[in-house]
Amino acid sequence: MGQDQTYIHGYAAAEDRRLHDQAATLEELLHHDSTFPAGSSVLEAGSGVGAQTLPLLRRSPGIRLTCLDRSAASLDAARTRLRAAGLPLPDFRQADLCALPFPDGAFDHAFVCFVLEHLPEPDAALAELRRVLRPGGSLTVIEGDHGSVLLHPDDEAAQAAIACQVALQRTAGGDARIGRRLAPLLVGAGFVAVRVSPRPVHADAGRPALVDGFVRRTFTAMVAGVRDEAVRAGLTDAAAFEAGLRALLRTTEADGTFGYTFFKATAVAPPAQR
Amino acid sequence: MGQDQTYIHGYAAAEDRRLHDQAATLEELLHHDSTFPAGSSVLEAGSGVGAQTLPLLRRSPGIRLTCLDRSAASLDAARTRLRAAGLPLPDFRQADLCALPFPDGAFDHAFVCFVLEHLPEPDAALAELRRVLRPGGSLTVIEGDHGSVLLHPDDEAAQAAIACQVALQRTAGGDARIGRRLAPLLVGAGFVAVRVSPRPVHADAGRPALVDGFVRRTFTAMVAGVRDEAVRAGLTDAAAFEAGLRALLRTTEADGTFGYTFFKATAVAPPAQR
Repeated sequence: MGQDQTYIHGYAAAEDRRLHDQAATLEELLHHDSTFPAGSSVLEAGSGVGAQTLPLLRRSPGIRLTCLDRSAASLDAARTRLRAAGLPLPDFRQADLCALPFPDGAFDHAFVCFVLEHLPEPDAALAELRRVLRPGGSLTVIEGDHGSVLLHPDDEAAQAAIACQVALQRTAGGDARIGRRLAPLLVGAGFVAVRVSPRPVHADAGRPALVDGFVRRTFTAMVAGVRDEAVRAGLTDAAAFEAGLRALLRTTEADGTFGYTFFKATAVAPPAQR
Repeated sequence: MGQDQTYIHGYAAAEDRRLHDQAATLEELLHHDSTFPAGSSVLEAGSGVGAQTLPLLRRSPGIRLTCLDRSAASLDAARTRLRAAGLPLPDFRQADLCALPFPDGAFDHAFVCFVLEHLPEPDAALAELRRVLRPGGSLTVIEGDHGSVLLHPDDEAAQAAIACQVALQRTAGGDARIGRRLAPLLVGAGFVAVRVSPRPVHADAGRPALVDGFVRRTFTAMVAGVRDEAVRAGLTDAAAFEAGLRALLRTTEADGTFGYTFFKATAVAPPAQR
């Protein structure tokens, strides 16, 4: 889920909690089919504070995991959390996704979740991931798409608040609507056997845990997180933005609904070109 | 999928073919979990030309089916088609969905697909459906939501062309964005155990049958079908509308993607109130 470059995910404690709430609520939807064989080498690129590392390790015991992130603070937070959860510690590496410190073909699998949306050059990162995968190795990518939000009741102020986040992320070089274009990105980076699977969240009064965990504590909290920056950037004013947040929360009432679609893609690194 | 009231689905031969193409492409996605026990009585309300009746009968052999529609011509077309497919003929009834010619509790199950979107009073139709279901009987509803369209590349002219269809359907009393609000509609009509399941279609170059069957021959064909009326109503001009159609077709190229989400709801009629 998108933020701008000056507000890196997981640095603040509240943001850290938000990411973990999100991971718990969505784990089944996003990760139920993410398992890698014991003994295989897996790279989690852009692993952040480890919110996605926990389900990865729980669902794929015995993998040889490397977690890579550009932030030493995030890697430290992930290390602490994995230790607390009693999970085996992966190899932690601090580096940039577009210049991976690994030789060609070093990994059997790579896993990237909520990362490409922040990169000015996702195609360069994907080319690097292809390079460090062995021929026939697999890549799994999960991203959101802020264009997929479906509100009931629909509301212009809510859409405008979401648009602030999209605009700030674009200014920072990212794309909060990257989910829909995973297939062409992967094909363009030279991957084969590209399959994209939309993962829709639909929260209504019949699913109170999703309403609370996703609509209130994940999505609305994330939009609320860009308020000050959106006002500073002149994209909105405080009153309009607050009206948008109220309209987002309005969808959590008994007669409201909220929809969002994540996209999960899998692809295979082709045999090396001769 | 929506049209206005003066253009009832299935009357024209081209429209009839379009609806059958759509039904074949989407059958697995929408109907794989729609089965009713042999011997049970099932009402298909708003059965039209029978596009959804075929998968219904194929997947639930031995049901006692009643097909109801307000159009005698549509019922005739459905009868011809079911006969050609060698399927057992249901009981055909011509009547309005908001005044069902059946006693209370007459059916074990009811099935409504791409119908509520056209009704000025979907809540009245749902109340009637609840009345004719036995206590504990089930209702299945499938509808689209035109707000769920995700285009890559995204395009304002394409969005404007889709908005013409939404506006015409609204003028006719319908709601092309009804999918997102099935849960509150069903709860409001007195149903219990309401569950809504989004069914996303994601068409990219890796799924050529979906690109052709859904994006080209279903969705774009449907939008193209309102061109003349949209121009007459002053919602667009021919050049702008054509640009929108070209942009929709642009998503079918190798680096494009197209997304749409259907909503399937199931609910139960509660015990009669005393």
